[in-house]
Amino acid sequence: MSLLEKINKTGDIKRIPEDQLDALAAEIREYMLDVVSKNGGHLASSLGSVEITIALHRALSIPEDRIIWDVGHQAYTHKILTGRRKDFAGLREYDGISGFPKPSESEADPFATGHASTSISAALGLCRARDLSGGKETIVSVIGDGALTGGMAYEALNDASTLKSNLVIILNDNKMSISENVGGLSGYLNKIRTRKGYGDLKDDVEEKLSRIPGIGPRLVREIKKQKDGIRHFLTKGDFFEDIGINYIGPIDGHNISELVSAINAAKRYDRTVLIHAITQKGKGYGPAEKSPSRFHGVDPFTKETGEAKGQRKRTYTDIAGATLKRMAADDEKITAVCAAMAEGTGLVGFKRAYPDRFFDVGIAEEHAVTMAAGMASGGLKPFVAIYSTFLQRAYDQIIHDVCMEDLNVKFLVDRAGIVGKDGETHQGIFDISFLLSCPNMTVMAPKNKYELYDMLKFMKDYEGPCAIRYPRGEASEILKEKRDIIKHGKSELIFKGETVALLALGAMNEDALKVREMLIKNGTEPTLVNMRFAKPLDEEMLKDLSKEHKLIVTLEENVISGGMGEAVDAFYLKEGISTDVLNIGLPDAFIKQGDRETLKKHLGLDPVLITHKIMERL
Amino acid sequence: MSLLEKINKTGDIKRIPEDQLDALAAEIREYMLDVVSKNGGHLASSLGSVEITIALHRALSIPEDRIIWDVGHQAYTHKILTGRRKDFAGLREYDGISGFPKPSESEADPFATGHASTSISAALGLCRARDLSGGKETIVSVIGDGALTGGMAYEALNDASTLKSNLVIILNDNKMSISENVGGLSGYLNKIRTRKGYGDLKDDVEEKLSRIPGIGPRLVREIKKQKDGIRHFLTKGDFFEDIGINYIGPIDGHNISELVSAINAAKRYDRTVLIHAITQKGKGYGPAEKSPSRFHGVDPFTKETGEAKGQRKRTYTDIAGATLKRMAADDEKITAVCAAMAEGTGLVGFKRAYPDRFFDVGIAEEHAVTMAAGMASGGLKPFVAIYSTFLQRAYDQIIHDVCMEDLNVKFLVDRAGIVGKDGETHQGIFDISFLLSCPNMTVMAPKNKYELYDMLKFMKDYEGPCAIRYPRGEASEILKEKRDIIKHGKSELIFKGETVALLALGAMNEDALKVREMLIKNGTEPTLVNMRFAKPLDEEMLKDLSKEHKLIVTLEENVISGGMGEAVDAFYLKEGISTDVLNIGLPDAFIKQGDRETLKKHLGLDPVLITHKIMERL
Repeated sequence: MSLLEKINKTGDIKRIPEDQLDALAAEIREYMLDVVSKNGGHLASSLGSVEITIALHRALSIPEDRIIWDVGHQAYTHKILTGRRKDFAGLREYDGISGFPKPSESEADPFATGHASTSISAALGLCRARDLSGGKETIVSVIGDGALTGGMAYEALNDASTLKSNLVIILNDNKMSISENVGGLSGYLNKIRTRKGYGDLKDDVEEKLSRIPGIGPRLVREIKKQKDGIRHFLTKGDFFEDIGINYIGPIDGHNISELVSAINAAKRYDRTVLIHAITQKGKGYGPAEKSPSRFHGVDPFTKETGEAKGQRKRTYTDIAGATLKRMAADDEKITAVCAAMAEGTGLVGFKRAYPDRFFDVGIAEEHAVTMAAGMASGGLKPFVAIYSTFLQRAYDQIIHDVCMEDLNVKFLVDRAGIVGKDGETHQGIFDISFLLSCPNMTVMAPKNKYELYDMLKFMKDYEGPCAIRYPRGEASEILKEKRDIIKHGKSELIFKGETVALLALGAMNEDALKVREMLIKNGTEPTLVNMRFAKPLDEEMLKDLSKEHKLIVTLEENVISGGMGEAVDAFYLKEGISTDVLNIGLPDAFIKQGDRETLKKHLGLDPVLITHKIMERL
Repeated sequence: MSLLEKINKTGDIKRIPEDQLDALAAEIREYMLDVVSKNGGHLASSLGSVEITIALHRALSIPEDRIIWDVGHQAYTHKILTGRRKDFAGLREYDGISGFPKPSESEADPFATGHASTSISAALGLCRARDLSGGKETIVSVIGDGALTGGMAYEALNDASTLKSNLVIILNDNKMSISENVGGLSGYLNKIRTRKGYGDLKDDVEEKLSRIPGIGPRLVREIKKQKDGIRHFLTKGDFFEDIGINYIGPIDGHNISELVSAINAAKRYDRTVLIHAITQKGKGYGPAEKSPSRFHGVDPFTKETGEAKGQRKRTYTDIAGATLKRMAADDEKITAVCAAMAEGTGLVGFKRAYPDRFFDVGIAEEHAVTMAAGMASGGLKPFVAIYSTFLQRAYDQIIHDVCMEDLNVKFLVDRAGIVGKDGETHQGIFDISFLLSCPNMTVMAPKNKYELYDMLKFMKDYEGPCAIRYPRGEASEILKEKRDIIKHGKSELIFKGETVALLALGAMNEDALKVREMLIKNGTEPTLVNMRFAKPLDEEMLKDLSKEHKLIVTLEENVISGGMGEAVDAFYLKEGISTDVLNIGLPDAFIKQGDRETLKKHLGLDPVLITHKIMERL
């Protein structure tokens, strides 16, 4: 029987003898690799946090004590240790378990996470609830050094310093965000690490103590025995201490007993304590240790070599990155801005070619957008590439700093629509709504890779706030022969038909094509319009269509509320045009993980169901 | 001729002899008081920044050099010094100048501000634009210690530390946010201030230097002569230095020559330099020095006494604060959370009565919302009170941390709709749109003060994310006899009529009443429904109305895109109900300053214009 097989429910980890914990950690890594190489997932972070998780579960009583995992992608070991070992095989599948902590999945997950930098805020809220109800549980936030560059983590630290009771923050410092870390804080953490190499320090102190005449050697033995250690008295993180947070560290984040000691020590303070644990992203798996960024979030791969399975398809992200790089050759005003996502947003090539015009600001979407607004007001043409779901963070900055002064900032809204296996926290299903509400904003979405290219060219020369949204994954090649020139606010007529007009935005053109075929089989040949612009709407086209069709069908991969469909509805009503409109979009709900096809079927967004709805309406 | 009369255009300040600058500062304060006591405005911050502004304009060449004023409400002196002295008399009026920096108003305003914590980001963007185009201008961000608690300021500092060219940040440290400052950073700044009293320090150093045999006294004289001073070498802000920002200070923020020296010194670095200037909020005006919070943003007052003019009317804010406090007496799970706005959101009484259950987290809306989500997940009933315009900052947290897990967080969305004199940056005109897009969210708005009270009671016992939006200013008493019990998602029928149905949300009920009267005069007695809920919609009512009316009119004080009106449109179309709907709301544009009545008229949102539109449609 393997050690791992003894882990069937929360608490089982406490029955494993201490000297077998490292072996268990190795088994967990092996299992994680098996599953993630098959299902894809966030590998490198979870490989790096195995010992921290084991230590937490040894030092705490779960579920009474609570752990909030920042971003959540470091929580795989936590899932395995809390009764989900077997279920873990179905990681990120439609009927399987989520890739992120989820209260509905286990009482060991007190708070859902997925976006970065939320854990200290949530933990502080839990502490205050505990204190007001007289509870005694320990509450821990585990946050990466990358997530610590997010402003809200700092807002939370600032507030946490006022706490008069215990909160434990574990800084899982792997010297990486998703890409390499950037900025001053990263430099500071590096200074702590090197100023007092935590290994050296230990020897250093022991040596000094041992030289104290008489009691020295005994003291060292005492200290070594003492579970809680004393190391945390010996260094200090001025930055944290300055804003009123107790600092313990740096300690070795792969040394379980050292971690357990630190956690036990930290639990005793009546204030906020930060344990600085140094870890290695991708720990224990050669390919991930070598390329932690590549193994941050991965598609299925061959475990032995680390090579991706299947052929790598050219994605919208690739096209966007390559096109931007090409355009930058002719237009030196172009800059690229991203938030810790050079790889994810396809900007690595741009970064290499134009390092002076590439800006990775860290996990800091708010700053990214306003900094870009500053660039635009200084005459540059910044392209800000952020995933749809993370751009939500910068809604206020888009309104207040970009659109209000009509500044020339361009947004590459990647991973828009259903993203699939990452589930609820990562679906890009609100961007059309929140972008349409912004005055002066232009919002586009391409039907295929060629159109993305054309839209980028258009965007480069367009003056004013402008966004292109495109989905995750392979770039479509549909309708490659249809390539009308892009004009602001103008749609593209794909097929002229009758009775029904399909108005498809971006990726929904592919579904619309299939719907069209089915409708033809049913005796109706519909018109198909590629909307191109969700804002401004092609009002002329809308008017014309209403004259010649019985039913207008809007299709978008976004929630209905505030989306393009509602804008079309409102337009017709404003104009007093009485026409029947069917809005196809996503329901007013969060969408769990699963592959795109399965999800779209379940959400009524696949061609068969759409056709059915249309026939019903006719 | 007064000194002030010599200030007619940008640069005139440089012609004032140095020894008359303090006298000029006094005249500026006097003028500011004259105008703000008449027009209302952000007084205390602008009183505190007079010398900083004079020093900046002496040390820099405006408009080539650029100053970004964080929040913007400290920029009154800047306006006066840049050709807007006379215009300043029309501060915040419809045809007058804005209360905030505005590029369209003057080339001396390079970037629009209004929300806190954006200035370092914008300045950094301008620096990068400068560096890429080979410019040499100096770029300065002036930020208050309050705005520095906002996460995006920290994101920007983190990024600014990577800059290889010059950026000057002036920390205008008045030891206050809008309310009193909170959190660790505030404690840290206090430590710097007290550790080395900046006055003492000077004497200290001079004394020590003067004792150096031989060269001492000469050295001191030399140093005193030297414009740039050396004081900045003598203390240090570890916090800033730790993250790679050069620190100069603390210096006296009311000593012009000291400020000029520091700015000249800071300009020479090839990196980011922070000057820590200590100021007094409300400086030079007794009542404001005594109660800086009360004079943060003020309505017209009597200059001599500082007393408010006219009778203080009971506002929605008052009702919300008082009701919450009363409810908290019976329900110990209630907590109140605000972001540096205890006064502004009416929570001072709550804070006094229940200090343990009151949480001011600083200017940190993101953290406020997620911290409240943590509280809710720990079993509390947090009420988060934030102005509509500032809640935009927490859109992602509302989606990801509150709504996704359907947590029991209640939002008091104050200053919703047109706020009036604060203009573009402060209008609360997007909240319905962004809140409606959030799954699981309930959104209400009261027609009068009694209904706000009833809604708060309802909200207390409702389980799940829930928001009440209400406007700035006096609470309405209209229709006080109409007080149906509040039911989730149910509207209230006010008057049954025919032909036209007016569906009014919140404050629009008042306009709707007037529209109704005018319609009656025109021969049509319309139905009037108080919507109460923008989400979920009262679908049953909508269906019934469509049967009995020719025209449905939706009325809301929010942009049309994504608002309640569009939701009504989409509902009818979804149900295949063919009915004519007229959406009355705000245009897809930013709204400048002015009084509410004037603005509503110009926006087509006043009763006469609405009636006209309805008649036209009929």
